[in-house]
Amino acid sequence: QRRKNAILVDGVILNGPVADSEAGEKFVEEATKIIMEEVIKKAADVTEKVCEWQPPEKLKALLDLELKDTGENHQKLLQFCRDVIKFSVKTNHPRFFNQLYAGIDYYSLAARFITEALNPSVYTYEVSPVFLLVEDAVLKKMIEFIGWEEGDGIFNPGGSVSNMYAMNLARYKYCPDIKEQGLSGMPRLVVLTSDECHYSVKKAASFLGIGTQNVYFIKSDERGKMIPEELEKQVLRARKEGSAPFFVSATAGTTVLGAFDPLDEIADICERYGLWLHLTLTKLSHVCFELLYGRILFSSRANSVAWNPHKMLMAGIQCCALLVKDSSGLLKRCYSANASYLFQQDKFYDVSYDTGDKSIQCSRRADAFKFWMTWKALGTTGLEERVNRALALARYLVDEIKKREGFQLLLEPEYANICFWYIPPSLRNMEEGHEYWEKLHHVAPAIKERMMKKGSIMLGYQPHRGKVNFFRQVIISPKVSREDMDFLLDEISSLGKDL
Amino acid sequence: QRRKNAILVDGVILNGPVADSEAGEKFVEEATKIIMEEVIKKAADVTEKVCEWQPPEKLKALLDLELKDTGENHQKLLQFCRDVIKFSVKTNHPRFFNQLYAGIDYYSLAARFITEALNPSVYTYEVSPVFLLVEDAVLKKMIEFIGWEEGDGIFNPGGSVSNMYAMNLARYKYCPDIKEQGLSGMPRLVVLTSDECHYSVKKAASFLGIGTQNVYFIKSDERGKMIPEELEKQVLRARKEGSAPFFVSATAGTTVLGAFDPLDEIADICERYGLWLHLTLTKLSHVCFELLYGRILFSSRANSVAWNPHKMLMAGIQCCALLVKDSSGLLKRCYSANASYLFQQDKFYDVSYDTGDKSIQCSRRADAFKFWMTWKALGTTGLEERVNRALALARYLVDEIKKREGFQLLLEPEYANICFWYIPPSLRNMEEGHEYWEKLHHVAPAIKERMMKKGSIMLGYQPHRGKVNFFRQVIISPKVSREDMDFLLDEISSLGKDL
Repeated sequence: QRRKNAILVDGVILNGPVADSEAGEKFVEEATKIIMEEVIKKAADVTEKVCEWQPPEKLKALLDLELKDTGENHQKLLQFCRDVIKFSVKTNHPRFFNQLYAGIDYYSLAARFITEALNPSVYTYEVSPVFLLVEDAVLKKMIEFIGWEEGDGIFNPGGSVSNMYAMNLARYKYCPDIKEQGLSGMPRLVVLTSDECHYSVKKAASFLGIGTQNVYFIKSDERGKMIPEELEKQVLRARKEGSAPFFVSATAGTTVLGAFDPLDEIADICERYGLWLHLTLTKLSHVCFELLYGRILFSSRANSVAWNPHKMLMAGIQCCALLVKDSSGLLKRCYSANASYLFQQDKFYDVSYDTGDKSIQCSRRADAFKFWMTWKALGTTGLEERVNRALALARYLVDEIKKREGFQLLLEPEYANICFWYIPPSLRNMEEGHEYWEKLHHVAPAIKERMMKKGSIMLGYQPHRGKVNFFRQVIISPKVSREDMDFLLDEISSLGKDL
Repeated sequence: QRRKNAILVDGVILNGPVADSEAGEKFVEEATKIIMEEVIKKAADVTEKVCEWQPPEKLKALLDLELKDTGENHQKLLQFCRDVIKFSVKTNHPRFFNQLYAGIDYYSLAARFITEALNPSVYTYEVSPVFLLVEDAVLKKMIEFIGWEEGDGIFNPGGSVSNMYAMNLARYKYCPDIKEQGLSGMPRLVVLTSDECHYSVKKAASFLGIGTQNVYFIKSDERGKMIPEELEKQVLRARKEGSAPFFVSATAGTTVLGAFDPLDEIADICERYGLWLHLTLTKLSHVCFELLYGRILFSSRANSVAWNPHKMLMAGIQCCALLVKDSSGLLKRCYSANASYLFQQDKFYDVSYDTGDKSIQCSRRADAFKFWMTWKALGTTGLEERVNRALALARYLVDEIKKREGFQLLLEPEYANICFWYIPPSLRNMEEGHEYWEKLHHVAPAIKERMMKKGSIMLGYQPHRGKVNFFRQVIISPKVSREDMDFLLDEISSLGKDL
């Protein structure tokens, strides 16, 4: 029938849609069922494997990855879905402790399905009315939590990008001419951060044309906290060299040790020398601090804050906001390019709702919505309970590590990062000399290999500041229980006892 | 029972998980049903509204956006889901023509649900084995399509960010010392691009510390194509000024007019003067070119290509790759920071699969997977059919515009962007003087307001290069039919006839 009434242009039939909607809908339904059974319902089940390990070459052979001229049928495609799930690491698993994100948040997940189905891009109110208002509401609430009376902000693709945004914004504030004229012919700009900071600060300095050599790393103390006196020394050194220190990046919860830089002392120095203070909440949420310690933790003194709800608050990757204390429109002045095809000023609504020109991106995901949904579902109290529980579990684990033979803490944890060694029986009576450390260095990688191949647990390790390889445990998911903590230590002992 | 055997730490019960998995799973199931009914099944239905327009203040009042101390129950949350969907623009609707993305791809959507549920971060093989291999397979296929024998690449959050990556990479190639030393004290770098280029080139120059003044805009001809002689003049001018031209950004399919820069002539000039040639496939896919014109279109002569499958190939926002001709590891040398906690070299597998150090991001989404799924489902042939159909529809619309009274093409379209004016009856006999253009300028915004409030269709407009406001139509979705093209013109006439 369709072919009979065909309107042909260059041999293509143009009547009616070409896509078979019914078959397509059916496919999505079938795939969703698989996701429900194989991912979501298994997320709470500790008897499932954390991963079904295969080495790269073998996995390539197991999956049919090649893209061909002809398509595959739905049955084959659904099998791909099953295989992809099967061989993927279950970051939702209660025993996945390998990164600074983990677990499943049902509310965030439902919100993510909605945004994927609606496929919005958040730049103008006309095309994303709901998601722009949601982003605005979430940013306002985050700003309130930081303790600022006013502020501005934007969600963007990750903490690393947030740090870049902040550094560029501080540079614009320091010298607005740089936006147009660039850095050539300008004095050498200097960024200051602790030697425990996240590697993204260096990446940002390189990307922004500041140069990695112009990141001055401030010594930190034995706990990994920036030493304020050292910061002041380096500021003075930079000034003496005739360069322009303009930006201090502090961290609340460093990546490996979980250290908190002393923000109040750092803020004093920044004020004294007119430096922009940027704070990264690397893996914890500001919520945690306030709830835990009942204080604002001085983050309100920062000029900007990078807050990543995709980590401890389980919003799903990616979900990161850069928050800015300035409310004079600095963010927009710094980033605007005034594209007339997108940000027409003769629209019939209040165009101050069009936020696209604050961003380095054009298309931008509605990442605020999933965090909004979780917060709406749990309330601030529910978020607080989650964090309290994770921290209580961390304290339980620390106590167990202290009690058990063969386990040794690197340092008393300040927060949720627990760094420890497992000492196999063969090393327990050895003197702590070169040979001891050399041998201990290979213990964590060997245990890691065994746990991956068994699929029982996933836990990260690294060497750090002259210390040989140690495990780093962070608790995030509310599905983690005391039993999982016991299992973690039992399993490490069992996997490593013959090393 | 749980409370009876409670292990308390600081008042928190640590036995068993705290989250109610069953209720959570149920919630996701209910939300998925709503998505299926309200978004996916309605995506093919032209009798549904494209948007349910509400002005910002009214919409705020309709939605309960405030985040509170206590959470909401599931019933309330599901109502939020319904409201969010109701008041969101249906970018899947066959009559949504407002942006350079549209429609629904069932395969990509299923893949997106999978990645949201699995929540991977693509940086190391150990944590994202499948998604790293998929990204690798997709990049290899894209490189093959461009016509390079070898190459490198990375998926990242959008075309704007891809352009930044390319500019920074070209700068690193031009002078590797800039990574460490920064731009201060270096000669003034100059970027060259056409005056029709996307605004992200300017944003990139500003972000990277090069400065917007050092973007030299090359004159384009009346069709919006960069004039190669003008490019050469500007390169010579930059050299004469003692500055360092290093990067030419060309576009295949500009944002507004859909113009194709003459790549072969531009490539000749780049070779002559040793400039990096970057090509942006702003909204079309390379696939289109090759299939349509049966030729490689010289993009193989580019040093880098930004390819955005989230536009014409409907992969969903965000899905963008930066592809690089260099296969000597330039991308990694430029971007690496060697974070020892993530990229340990003593892992038990081949760590060359860990791609995280090529990226400016740390956490990174598995955006390649959804595009892989669509390609797998349709095959190259199926993608080709989609593009051919969209282009045939574009030609049909152009013919109709020429036939109908009151419609006027801005210029004969080269590809899929159709720029046109609607001339209401009141203007049809007026002389084309100042008053005529002034009045015509207000026609498109007035019709846009009416179509938004009615919800029948969404189509963008803008002024451009001295031309008053005109409509820009781009066809992407395979659900669009000839009937929708007729409706588009009928509706514009009907909404604008009294203006």
